[in-house]
Amino acid sequence: MGRILDIESGDEDEAVLVPPSNFSMVEEAIFRSSFPQPSNFPFLQTLNLRSIIYLCPEPYPHENLEFLQSNNIRLFQFGIEGKKENSSPVRTHSIMEALKVLIDVRNHPVLIHCKQGKHRTGCLVGCLRKLQNWCLSSVFEEYQRFAGAKSRIMDLTFIETFDILILRQCLYSIIYQYQGYGSKKRRLLYKDESLQKPGLTSF
Amino acid sequence: MGRILDIESGDEDEAVLVPPSNFSMVEEAIFRSSFPQPSNFPFLQTLNLRSIIYLCPEPYPHENLEFLQSNNIRLFQFGIEGKKENSSPVRTHSIMEALKVLIDVRNHPVLIHCKQGKHRTGCLVGCLRKLQNWCLSSVFEEYQRFAGAKSRIMDLTFIETFDILILRQCLYSIIYQYQGYGSKKRRLLYKDESLQKPGLTSF
Repeated sequence: MGRILDIESGDEDEAVLVPPSNFSMVEEAIFRSSFPQPSNFPFLQTLNLRSIIYLCPEPYPHENLEFLQSNNIRLFQFGIEGKKENSSPVRTHSIMEALKVLIDVRNHPVLIHCKQGKHRTGCLVGCLRKLQNWCLSSVFEEYQRFAGAKSRIMDLTFIETFDILILRQCLYSIIYQYQGYGSKKRRLLYKDESLQKPGLTSF
Repeated sequence: MGRILDIESGDEDEAVLVPPSNFSMVEEAIFRSSFPQPSNFPFLQTLNLRSIIYLCPEPYPHENLEFLQSNNIRLFQFGIEGKKENSSPVRTHSIMEALKVLIDVRNHPVLIHCKQGKHRTGCLVGCLRKLQNWCLSSVFEEYQRFAGAKSRIMDLTFIETFDILILRQCLYSIIYQYQGYGSKKRRLLYKDESLQKPGLTSF
């Protein structure tokens, strides 16, 4: 966020900010929430978003698209059905593609959302946590904190069986694709210029 | 956190990380959780903590103190009783002092914790949100996400009645104290050197 409070303009009359429900920071420059309403736009502006990952098949509302346009935010839509069986290869493919967008620092700061910010968003964040080597019980605890009484066993099974190795291999292939070999070796650009190792080692 | 995943060492045999229960990122370089156990230490090391804000009166366990020492983490302890009336001036004073430590970027990255990461931690984070001008319903929603069925009305009342103006005035006085006047004017140091305005305007 980079901005906790602004003291010089911090008088008591300052406009109150309304985050979307189920809003939270996931990682540095990664946020999650329910579907943002126009009342949430002033708050979202404080996040300086570069992109939004939207996980529903329904078209994005006009006023939300306008907000994105006027704030130069890129929309990545992955149309995942709300209540269909999670084991479908279609959902696995969508979450995999969304993960690739999510961990690409060129898209940060990024907000993930679906409708309630519980199930589809919870699945994507859960898969990110697996990629970060979190133990499964911690991944489930975080999922349930947001899903509450609406926790779905099929989501937990989806997260548990999601094959993170395929994504790791895919990321390796991206590294090779960008780096090239031998004299054709190139490098990706990083925010942290002090990185010693070549390639997409950490961010 | 600055580290989402390390692909080069990302083979499937890599040690699984165990965050403390109720762990979450609050803001950039601010985290919250329940009381960390030794099994959580490898995970906590990935956060590169500079300090811990501990909100219970009980002495810190020996093995936790050792972890802090070997990782050069400073402990700030504010002994707040677990179930006493929240309206006590003592608790208000403790939360105020903890907030001053919390928003000082020189202490970041910082982890806030009590025992369960629900009530005392929830109160401190709730007061931080008020300082950030979040609307009260969003502050309460976040408190309840962590407290769950153990949500306490006295905590919500504490957050609602906590006077953030006193803290703002106190921060102004810190600015004057550090900056001085006229030819004695000094400046605090900031991470973001591109700041145009003098003083503690935003971080």
